[in-house]
Amino acid sequence: MSFSLHDSALGRQVDLVPLVTGKISVYCCGLTVQAAPHLGHIRKEVVFDVLRRWLTFSGLEVTLVVNVTDIDDKILAKAAAEGRPWFAHAYFYERQLHRATAALGCLPPTYEPRATGHIPEQLELVQELIARGHAYPAADHSGDVYFDVRSWPGYGQLSHQRIADMEPALDADPRGKRDPHDFALWKAAKPDDPATASWASPWGRGRPGWHLECSAMAGKYLGDAFDLHGGGLDLKFPHHENERAQSQAAGRPFAHPWMHNAFVTDPSGEKMSKSLANGMLVSEVVRRFDPRAVRYYLVAPHYRSMVEFSDQAVATAAAGLARLDAFVDRASARLGAVRPWTMGEAPAPQALPAGFARAMDDDLGAPAAIAQLHDSARAGNRALDAGDDPTALTALVQVQNMLSVLGLWKLDPAWPAAGGDLEPVVDGLVSALLEQRQAARARRDFAAADQLRDRLTALGLTIEDAPDGPRWKR
Amino acid sequence: MSFSLHDSALGRQVDLVPLVTGKISVYCCGLTVQAAPHLGHIRKEVVFDVLRRWLTFSGLEVTLVVNVTDIDDKILAKAAAEGRPWFAHAYFYERQLHRATAALGCLPPTYEPRATGHIPEQLELVQELIARGHAYPAADHSGDVYFDVRSWPGYGQLSHQRIADMEPALDADPRGKRDPHDFALWKAAKPDDPATASWASPWGRGRPGWHLECSAMAGKYLGDAFDLHGGGLDLKFPHHENERAQSQAAGRPFAHPWMHNAFVTDPSGEKMSKSLANGMLVSEVVRRFDPRAVRYYLVAPHYRSMVEFSDQAVATAAAGLARLDAFVDRASARLGAVRPWTMGEAPAPQALPAGFARAMDDDLGAPAAIAQLHDSARAGNRALDAGDDPTALTALVQVQNMLSVLGLWKLDPAWPAAGGDLEPVVDGLVSALLEQRQAARARRDFAAADQLRDRLTALGLTIEDAPDGPRWKR
Repeated sequence: MSFSLHDSALGRQVDLVPLVTGKISVYCCGLTVQAAPHLGHIRKEVVFDVLRRWLTFSGLEVTLVVNVTDIDDKILAKAAAEGRPWFAHAYFYERQLHRATAALGCLPPTYEPRATGHIPEQLELVQELIARGHAYPAADHSGDVYFDVRSWPGYGQLSHQRIADMEPALDADPRGKRDPHDFALWKAAKPDDPATASWASPWGRGRPGWHLECSAMAGKYLGDAFDLHGGGLDLKFPHHENERAQSQAAGRPFAHPWMHNAFVTDPSGEKMSKSLANGMLVSEVVRRFDPRAVRYYLVAPHYRSMVEFSDQAVATAAAGLARLDAFVDRASARLGAVRPWTMGEAPAPQALPAGFARAMDDDLGAPAAIAQLHDSARAGNRALDAGDDPTALTALVQVQNMLSVLGLWKLDPAWPAAGGDLEPVVDGLVSALLEQRQAARARRDFAAADQLRDRLTALGLTIEDAPDGPRWKR
Repeated sequence: MSFSLHDSALGRQVDLVPLVTGKISVYCCGLTVQAAPHLGHIRKEVVFDVLRRWLTFSGLEVTLVVNVTDIDDKILAKAAAEGRPWFAHAYFYERQLHRATAALGCLPPTYEPRATGHIPEQLELVQELIARGHAYPAADHSGDVYFDVRSWPGYGQLSHQRIADMEPALDADPRGKRDPHDFALWKAAKPDDPATASWASPWGRGRPGWHLECSAMAGKYLGDAFDLHGGGLDLKFPHHENERAQSQAAGRPFAHPWMHNAFVTDPSGEKMSKSLANGMLVSEVVRRFDPRAVRYYLVAPHYRSMVEFSDQAVATAAAGLARLDAFVDRASARLGAVRPWTMGEAPAPQALPAGFARAMDDDLGAPAAIAQLHDSARAGNRALDAGDDPTALTALVQVQNMLSVLGLWKLDPAWPAAGGDLEPVVDGLVSALLEQRQAARARRDFAAADQLRDRLTALGLTIEDAPDGPRWKR
C-alpha cells in the first residue's frame, strides 16, 4: 500500500495510512435529492467509484458510505410546488440518482443513509456540542440551535480562511446569533412546514441543519475517526468546514485526509449553469452517447482538474475508448477471450503495468494512467502485427485489467446492459437450436421440435424467414 | 369509482370509498431485506403494482408506501456471519429488491421508508400506548416493552381469533410478560448487538419490534386514518393483527379495508420452501424466462389464489402472452403502431372493454380480465382476417391498454432497457442447447453431442458447472 493523495485540508499530498490495517473507511457527501442528476453531480460518484476500485485492487477492504440528503428548503419548496409530499419528491430523485450511477457503471456504495433517518444521532450531537460550550439555542427563542464558530479554534482550518474573511452563514435570522458566521445545527419548524417535515427536540419541533447530517451519519457508520472524507470541491466551504468543526468540537477526531473533486464546467469555464445542465442530465447524455464513453470522458482527466463539457469532448473520449476496445477485440479474436480482474477478486500477479499502478498511487493520476493504457494497447497491436503472441497476451491481460480498475471494461458487472455485443452470440445460438429442431423433425420427434420452438418463444424471440436464412427478433 | 375488494378484516367484499375524494392511500408491508428476493416475495409487489395501475387508470391519485424492514434478528445474524455490518447487509438486499421489482416491470412506490429511520416516531407510539394503559415495560426489567393484548378488546378481530386460541408471541423471554400473547413493542439491546443496532430509549438502549415499525411509518406518511392496508397473507397474523391493535389502541383509526395476497407454492402446495426458493430467485427466473412472461404468470391468477410454481406454468404463461403479442404485432404492422395509456396519463374514452373494467373493479378479478384480453385479441385477429380495419383498430387499442394496466405492455416505461440486455436470452439459449446435448447423449448420438459442444466453443462460450446449474462465460 503506497497510495498517496492530495489532502485538501493540508494542501499537500499525503500517504493514506489506514487506521485499521487492511481497511479503508470513506465518507463521501452525496446528493441533495431535489432534481434529476446531471454530469456535474455525477462526476463525484464516478471519481469515488474509481478510488474504491483502485483501493480494492490494492488489497484493501473499502467501506464507502454516501449519504442522501432527503430534506432541505429546496426539496420542501419544490415538493410543495408540485403538490406532492416532500418524501415522495426526495425518493423519486433518489431512485433517479441510482439509475444515473448505474448507467455510468458505478457500483452501489456500501451504505447510503438518509439524513431524515438519523434524527436521534443528530440530536445527540447537538446536545453534546451545547454541553461542551460550542453550540447554543438562538437568543431570540426561535427554536434554532447554532454552532458557535468563535468557540472553536480550528474553525477555518479546512478551507484556510479566517472567520473575518468568510461569508456569513445565511441559514437563519441573524438576530438570534452571537456571530453572523454561526451556522444552524438545528432549524426550528416554520409554520407552513408539513407536519412530517419536523421532529420533536428539546428546542421545539424542527429539523437538522445540512452540515449536522453528515457529521452524525459519518460518526454512526464509520466511527469517531475514519480514513477519508470526500466530496465535490463546492462542498469544501461551508459544508465540510462546518462538518469538521462540529465533529471535532464534539471530541471526535473525524477524518483526514480530505479529498475534493473539481467540477464539470460549461465551455465558458463556469461551474455548470442551470441552462447547460438541462442538456447534461445523465439520462439525456447516456441516450446520446455510449455510457462507457461518457464514463471515460469523466474518468480520463485528473479528478482535481475542471472538465469542460461539450459534445466534442465526449466524442473525443469515445474515440479514445474505441481504440482500446479495438485492440481488445483484435487480441481476443486471435488469442482467445480473457476475463479481467473484477471487484471482489484478488488481483493476479503481473496484472498491471508498473506505470499504471504508479500513476494511480500518485493521487489517482488518471491522465498518466490513461496514457499507460494506450501505450499498452499500442504495444499489444505491434506484437500482434509481429506475430508475438506471448507479448500480445500480456498486453491484453493488462489492458483489460486497467479498464476494469477504471470501471470501463465492457463486461464489468456494474454495467447494466453488458452485452450489447452479444447479438452475434445470439445469432449463433439460435441457428444451432433451429438446426436441432430440424434434426428432431427429421427423426420424427415432433414433441422435441415443438418444445424447442416453445423455448424460443418463452425467451421472447420470434423467428422470421429471411433470404439468407432465419432471423430472430425480440 | 366502483372498485370493490375482499376485506380480509371483515371477511367479505366491500366498496373502496376514498377518505379524501379522488385519492387513495395504501400502505403495503414490504420485505425484510435479509436475502435475495424470490418469486414468493415478489408476488406481492406485482399484485400491488397492478392495483396501483388500475386505481390510477380509474382516475384516482394513489399514494403507495412500502416499507423496508432493515433490522431484525435474521439480518443481524446473517451480517455477523458474513463479517459485514448489518446496515451494509440490509442495503445490499434493498438494492437487490429494487432490481427484482424493476426486472418484473413494477414501478417504484411513492415512498419506501426504512424501519431504522423512524426511531422517534416509534418511541412516541410506545409512550402513547403506555400512557393509555395498553403497554408496559417488562416486569423483569429487561428493557423490553410489551403490548398488553388483554387490555385491548379489539385484539384478534383482524384474524378472527380468540386470544386463547392464538400462538403465543415468541419474541422475548416470557418471564417479563403479563400474558404469553403479549408482543414486544421495543426490544432491549443484547450484549453482543453491534453499537449501531440500538438506540436510546426511556427503557434503555434497544430497537423497535417488527410490528411497531409499520404502525409508526404508516401513521407518519399516510396519517392516522388511511384507505387500504395490504400485504402477503402470511402477515395477517401476527404482524397485521398487532399493527392494527397498536395503532387503534393509540387512538388512530388506521386502515380499512385490508387486502392480502396468497402465496406462490411449490408443486406440493406448500408455501415456498427454502430449497425450492433457491431455484425461484427473481434474478434466476428472469434469466431463464422472458421477464414479461414471468409477470404474466404472476398477474394472471386471482391475487387471492395460491399460485403453484413450475417451469411448465411459466412456459404456459409465456405462450399466453405470446398470443397477445402476436396480435399486437400483426395489427400494428397492418394499422400502424398505437401507443397505449401509461401511468400519469388520463385514460382515453373507449380505452377498455367493459368486461375488463368490470372484472378489475370486482376485487381485481384477473382471471376474467385476462379472459377478456384474449377475447379481444381473438376478435381483433378475426377482424384482421375479414379486412375490418376499424374493428381491428379498436381491438388493438383496447388490448394494448389492458396490457398496460396489467404492466405487461412491452414498451412500458417500467421495463428496464426494453430490449437492450441480451444476457438473459443467451442464458436461455445456452441451457436449451445443453439440454439438447444431454438428450443426444441419452440417445447415444455422441457425434451430435460433440458437435453441440463445438458450436458453443466456436461462439467463444465456455460452460462451467455451478451449484445451481451450468453457467456460460465468454
